[in-house]
Amino acid sequence: MSNASPPALSTTVADRLAERFRSVRSFSTKICEPLSPEDCAIQSMPDASPTRWHLAHTTWFFETFVLAGQTSYQPFDPQYGYLFNSYYNLVGKQFPRPHRGLLSRPSLEEIRDYRRHVDEQIVECLLSGEGPSDRIAATIEIGLHHEQQHQELMLTDIKHVLSFNPVFPVYREGAFAETDREPGGEWVDFDEGVYSIGHEGDEFAFDNESPRHRVFLETFQLASRLVTCGDFLQFIEEGGYKRPELWLSLGWQVVSEQKWRAPLYWHDNEGQWMQFTLAGLQSVDPAQPVTHISFFEADAFARWAGARLPTEAEWEVASLRVPIEGNFADRVLDSGAAVHPSRQVIGKPEISQMFGDVWEWTSSSYSPYPGYAPAAGALGEYNGKFMCNQYVLRGGSCATSRDHIRRTYRNFFPPEARWQFSGVRLCR
Amino acid sequence: MSNASPPALSTTVADRLAERFRSVRSFSTKICEPLSPEDCAIQSMPDASPTRWHLAHTTWFFETFVLAGQTSYQPFDPQYGYLFNSYYNLVGKQFPRPHRGLLSRPSLEEIRDYRRHVDEQIVECLLSGEGPSDRIAATIEIGLHHEQQHQELMLTDIKHVLSFNPVFPVYREGAFAETDREPGGEWVDFDEGVYSIGHEGDEFAFDNESPRHRVFLETFQLASRLVTCGDFLQFIEEGGYKRPELWLSLGWQVVSEQKWRAPLYWHDNEGQWMQFTLAGLQSVDPAQPVTHISFFEADAFARWAGARLPTEAEWEVASLRVPIEGNFADRVLDSGAAVHPSRQVIGKPEISQMFGDVWEWTSSSYSPYPGYAPAAGALGEYNGKFMCNQYVLRGGSCATSRDHIRRTYRNFFPPEARWQFSGVRLCR
Amino acid sequence: MSNASPPALSTTVADRLAERFRSVRSFSTKICEPLSPEDCAIQSMPDASPTRWHLAHTTWFFETFVLAGQTSYQPFDPQYGYLFNSYYNLVGKQFPRPHRGLLSRPSLEEIRDYRRHVDEQIVECLLSGEGPSDRIAATIEIGLHHEQQHQELMLTDIKHVLSFNPVFPVYREGAFAETDREPGGEWVDFDEGVYSIGHEGDEFAFDNESPRHRVFLETFQLASRLVTCGDFLQFIEEGGYKRPELWLSLGWQVVSEQKWRAPLYWHDNEGQWMQFTLAGLQSVDPAQPVTHISFFEADAFARWAGARLPTEAEWEVASLRVPIEGNFADRVLDSGAAVHPSRQVIGKPEISQMFGDVWEWTSSSYSPYPGYAPAAGALGEYNGKFMCNQYVLRGGSCATSRDHIRRTYRNFFPPEARWQFSGVRLCR
Amino acid sequence: MSNASPPALSTTVADRLAERFRSVRSFSTKICEPLSPEDCAIQSMPDASPTRWHLAHTTWFFETFVLAGQTSYQPFDPQYGYLFNSYYNLVGKQFPRPHRGLLSRPSLEEIRDYRRHVDEQIVECLLSGEGPSDRIAATIEIGLHHEQQHQELMLTDIKHVLSFNPVFPVYREGAFAETDREPGGEWVDFDEGVYSIGHEGDEFAFDNESPRHRVFLETFQLASRLVTCGDFLQFIEEGGYKRPELWLSLGWQVVSEQKWRAPLYWHDNEGQWMQFTLAGLQSVDPAQPVTHISFFEADAFARWAGARLPTEAEWEVASLRVPIEGNFADRVLDSGAAVHPSRQVIGKPEISQMFGDVWEWTSSSYSPYPGYAPAAGALGEYNGKFMCNQYVLRGGSCATSRDHIRRTYRNFFPPEARWQFSGVRLCR
Repeated sequence: MSNASPPALSTTVADRLAERFRSVRSFSTKICEPLSPEDCAIQSMPDASPTRWHLAHTTWFFETFVLAGQTSYQPFDPQYGYLFNSYYNLVGKQFPRPHRGLLSRPSLEEIRDYRRHVDEQIVECLLSGEGPSDRIAATIEIGLHHEQQHQELMLTDIKHVLSFNPVFPVYREGAFAETDREPGGEWVDFDEGVYSIGHEGDEFAFDNESPRHRVFLETFQLASRLVTCGDFLQFIEEGGYKRPELWLSLGWQVVSEQKWRAPLYWHDNEGQWMQFTLAGLQSVDPAQPVTHISFFEADAFARWAGARLPTEAEWEVASLRVPIEGNFADRVLDSGAAVHPSRQVIGKPEISQMFGDVWEWTSSSYSPYPGYAPAAGALGEYNGKFMCNQYVLRGGSCATSRDHIRRTYRNFFPPEARWQFSGVRLCR
Repeated sequence: MSNASPPALSTTVADRLAERFRSVRSFSTKICEPLSPEDCAIQSMPDASPTRWHLAHTTWFFETFVLAGQTSYQPFDPQYGYLFNSYYNLVGKQFPRPHRGLLSRPSLEEIRDYRRHVDEQIVECLLSGEGPSDRIAATIEIGLHHEQQHQELMLTDIKHVLSFNPVFPVYREGAFAETDREPGGEWVDFDEGVYSIGHEGDEFAFDNESPRHRVFLETFQLASRLVTCGDFLQFIEEGGYKRPELWLSLGWQVVSEQKWRAPLYWHDNEGQWMQFTLAGLQSVDPAQPVTHISFFEADAFARWAGARLPTEAEWEVASLRVPIEGNFADRVLDSGAAVHPSRQVIGKPEISQMFGDVWEWTSSSYSPYPGYAPAAGALGEYNGKFMCNQYVLRGGSCATSRDHIRRTYRNFFPPEARWQFSGVRLCR
Repeated sequence: MSNASPPALSTTVADRLAERFRSVRSFSTKICEPLSPEDCAIQSMPDASPTRWHLAHTTWFFETFVLAGQTSYQPFDPQYGYLFNSYYNLVGKQFPRPHRGLLSRPSLEEIRDYRRHVDEQIVECLLSGEGPSDRIAATIEIGLHHEQQHQELMLTDIKHVLSFNPVFPVYREGAFAETDREPGGEWVDFDEGVYSIGHEGDEFAFDNESPRHRVFLETFQLASRLVTCGDFLQFIEEGGYKRPELWLSLGWQVVSEQKWRAPLYWHDNEGQWMQFTLAGLQSVDPAQPVTHISFFEADAFARWAGARLPTEAEWEVASLRVPIEGNFADRVLDSGAAVHPSRQVIGKPEISQMFGDVWEWTSSSYSPYPGYAPAAGALGEYNGKFMCNQYVLRGGSCATSRDHIRRTYRNFFPPEARWQFSGVRLCR
Repeated sequence: MSNASPPALSTTVADRLAERFRSVRSFSTKICEPLSPEDCAIQSMPDASPTRWHLAHTTWFFETFVLAGQTSYQPFDPQYGYLFNSYYNLVGKQFPRPHRGLLSRPSLEEIRDYRRHVDEQIVECLLSGEGPSDRIAATIEIGLHHEQQHQELMLTDIKHVLSFNPVFPVYREGAFAETDREPGGEWVDFDEGVYSIGHEGDEFAFDNESPRHRVFLETFQLASRLVTCGDFLQFIEEGGYKRPELWLSLGWQVVSEQKWRAPLYWHDNEGQWMQFTLAGLQSVDPAQPVTHISFFEADAFARWAGARLPTEAEWEVASLRVPIEGNFADRVLDSGAAVHPSRQVIGKPEISQMFGDVWEWTSSSYSPYPGYAPAAGALGEYNGKFMCNQYVLRGGSCATSRDHIRRTYRNFFPPEARWQFSGVRLCR
């Protein structure tokens, strides 16, 4: 790092960042409110992490990438650097991911102290003296988006933990919309042409959304609504999980080995389909968007329906027709609603529920945009190195915060992943 | 079960049983005192269980085998029968053992309530009206021995959990004896002949200790002391873990696959051997008995030393020469000592540390005594069905309660198990 | 199938097809000449098949898709339909792929009889009476391309089998070119624009090469030559296999688990790198193209070199500048050369070795072209269902036949596969 | 080894040994007669070996332990020492056992040459000059017993290979006895007392049969006949494989995981039980002894029948009442009979079929006799190191040679092994 004093942000900008910092950080605490220390300790699979670990890791991010560079900073606990590094090889060794659930200490209480300690330092860094440099401010911004990603994982990971419990515990009671809505749905047309996709401008975006670049698209049609549980029940009833010709070969292998017969969290209760939700066990509602399906299931459903998944370019181009509004986590936790996709909305906008509710699988494997360059240093490990054997999802879910999402936002998961709020919209 | 009213125990006997019941049950609570809810939630391997599970399962045992038979009893929670059954097929299905660590609920607090509820009912059953029938009293007696077994597992399982934590947490501070003692040791002679071994009489014993029967023993010599860490260090330094000819074939396979280079919990700290204990990380003390070794290591050590392991019959016959005294868990938790094997004691008795400190591996595979018959009903699943691919250990350890052990007591573990306080005494 | 007699091909076309049939089929026999019955029986991993199985399966393809539809045809052996179906669910059940190496019967001799039997019937079908219908002729054409694919696998699979043998058996002696050639190499420029790629016209192509469609490409530069063993040695020496920042996350996981330190078949012989080839163990020749590397290694090498892999569209567009010529299997087996990539050729054409020698990894994950529709019926299982977690390779190798390859040809393998003759050409 | 010339055997003894050598060695060849090179190449599981490997390994044994010690001997091929060492760590490294089936070379023909080469040298060593030393003669004797063990494995391993083939190949046609025999059977009484068991005297025996020693036996009763397929069918029909209370815990785990529903090689052919034999697929004959059952099945059957397995001491004491006669491999291959257990024989002797037909599981885990010392040097790795997690079987089978068996002979296999001709006789 250079010795020259970097240019400082104006106070107003720093104030606003501090405000946003407090807001995002306290939302993590809010998510944990209904959880006991035991809930927060458990790791249900190698891909998921204990809640307590998320709380610590997001804090470690600020400590490592913001505070550790300051000469005066004393780490809260020198061991935490090892315990709570996720995958940043350039920062140092990492406690093995599948063993995160073996750590009973530090306790939830100690991790709360850790959060308070780092929060105070960050706010001081933002508000004292000349305020933070551009680089520091940018890193804090990344850290907040990083924490918002983990907030979504906190919700999906704790749902996975609770789902193993035969008593079907409730994370948080919440209402499910009951209003009757017309199912319907239609195909919306798009013209062929060279389009530009990807991020551009000064607003925050992850490196994987850049550079903005041109793609050629043939004409296509996108469904005006999400696939519903009702649609999916029909797929199941017509033997969807028993017909290999509907499936990718790898998907069929997973279906056979895992004995998949329905989306994750669905239970066949003597002929009636039930669904485990964050508000406990519920009847499957045919009017809700189907969720917790893998790419394989989304793809097989589309084949069965005589359609296909959109590419991420098609999705992004289509998204320009609708505002970024929807059923998001921050709104939900402030209301009495369940953290769950809402019944489909028909009518305006022309294409409904593109944002919020469920992440939409695309047919695009997650790969670098032409000219993509990862960020320098350890933060370059954020995105690029995962560009293999994953598929892009778009639009955010009911577990995403509203100000975390963008039209250009690229989420990604392996094709067999089901524990996210993932759904499907048809294209052809 | 018969309709006729069974004969009731005399009040004094019932009083004594109630007193013992309270004492054993509260010792479980005492063991958990230093533990947080997170500590109690974690399962570190399929063979071990979360502390919370032990607390619930031992309670389930009384509820199922004592209370459930009473017409008026309402189960504390009907789901617990499934959640906390360990392996009793005749009682019903069992929540999968390797998934015990996935249950975050019921919480530690709820399980404490469960314990209080069942405790009250059992004490009432013991002290009210005519008192318990012989059968009920016998079942409670089994339940208490069962709980004492789990108390030992609570200590060894939590040690295993904490051992994964790179901060080496302390379960409970405790002193390690420092007095200098003469190592020495000698061979004690025993004559050939037909001996009787196994349990006899009215005192409690598990079914696997019966029937008492005759065995022919050739002359043998037993070491007057346990093998120490100092002895074992010499074995390591002379290449003990690198010489296949010292090992059973299966043992060599495990050594190679697991890359064993020392007992479990030993760490080579830049040339100095450290040992993780329930009182944190400590230097390896050459005068302490070696512990946390598998049957394979005990057997290889004996071969290296030009000796062998005793059979369980030899051990039992030899044990008649010494009183049942030693370093036991109940005494330790009342003192300021660490829960760990003590330095060896030389002198009187003729054979030292046969009881307490460390379980002693024998060369006897765990098999039924001639004429063995398991108990009737579900309690018959207690012992007999495990008589395969396990080896017998004798004498109890520093994690065993004094009034749980007997000369005829047969503990058993697979030959690769190391997380118990297991050690070795030579024979030839 | 319709009752109406389908239009027959003209005799000349049928003659030519029969000639090509004989030629392709006898090339399989030629490949097996140096092999013993034992060589042909062994399956070295689930992804590979015994030579004998390839000989039978390619025959089964003709029997099932051509002959079985003829009313008069008697199957050679009714069990073969089950034994030698690879993955066509619509045709019937399949003998489990990982167990192909457990079948010692039918013997190599019986499978040769099977081939002769089917060959005679196919030739008769082609040359007798009115000749084959268009559909039959098209299916035979597919069958021949199918067999050519398996011919390549026969070579790569037997290489894998022999590689396990510590005596390093020679499949077939053969010369390696020794001529000195200038390494050099330069970047060749391509303009941005909308290009068309994919197959068009009447010539045979697999369904995955269609439809021809437009793509937008930014400007790019392609290396005029392949990456050589010399280049790769430098990568190894500069710690390529030890620097996680060069690798995709999944790739680094494989490197760590599999302990990769060099391409497959390379042996570090006390400081000198040797390479197992179909002509036995040889010194690594720095002037040869590197081969038997995974996508992960190709990608890490490119990152290390400050470049990247080409997309398949870039590769196809670039290929238009060079003729389809190179080091192909059919030519090699007729010469005295080893079945191995040749030293690099510099000079004309502008871009050397695009065809033959080694398959070139692209950065494109294997996915359907816009508007792709698989063939109807069981033959539709040929390509589409594998479009997941695989990457496209282009250009053919020294184990490919010249008349099997096209500019539009899309080969595909998972990113960790190394047993094909796969190599790398840089792009930027 | 000493320089002094060791005492030579008398010519007659050497002649007899040479005669026996030729006879045992040629029996291996005879076993392979019906097999193709492909049959001999395949390894169906890690526990089994390819026939070709058995042919080579038994030859390697003579080369290594007899010929290699002679100064003038040139190894047939220096690589064979590595390829065909089974598990003798003191001799050198071993080609990994589970990979034996990956070796296609040396070919069956080359291994036959290897056998001829070593045979000539051994015979010359026996018959030339002064004849062999005592040590050499003893080693050859061990080598012959070693080869006879592998002859049994050749038969059971090839049966396992062929069993995977859905065409159910015939190893060798052979008749199955059809005579009707009275089932019956009774309990034969034995008195309590101190008995001596184990080998004594000059005749050959393996080290694990020594030393002869005393054991105390309580009174017991042994069944006069083997358990038959008819008996076992009844066990199956009464839910034997579905009742956990009949099984050892480990056994129940295997039953559940492997979905065992009948003995190995039994097929439920639409309600009719068929059995794969070395003479192809046959109906299950209720009058034949049941075979290919694991220790777990033998033990569960005994529990179901209200009986138990005999200890090996009980078996050995009982065997004194009958002559060593029965259905052995050498006799079978000279007759037209199938290599399969014969229908039970009732009447004389008092206890039928103790020798030959099927190995009888005992309840004794395989452990050293008191005072057991393995042979010196590499041959000490023959037996002792396997004394863990295995059970003793007694009496030989239809795949054992008559002159290989003894009353004191201890065969041993893990409790889940089923591919040997293993059966069961009840005790109580």
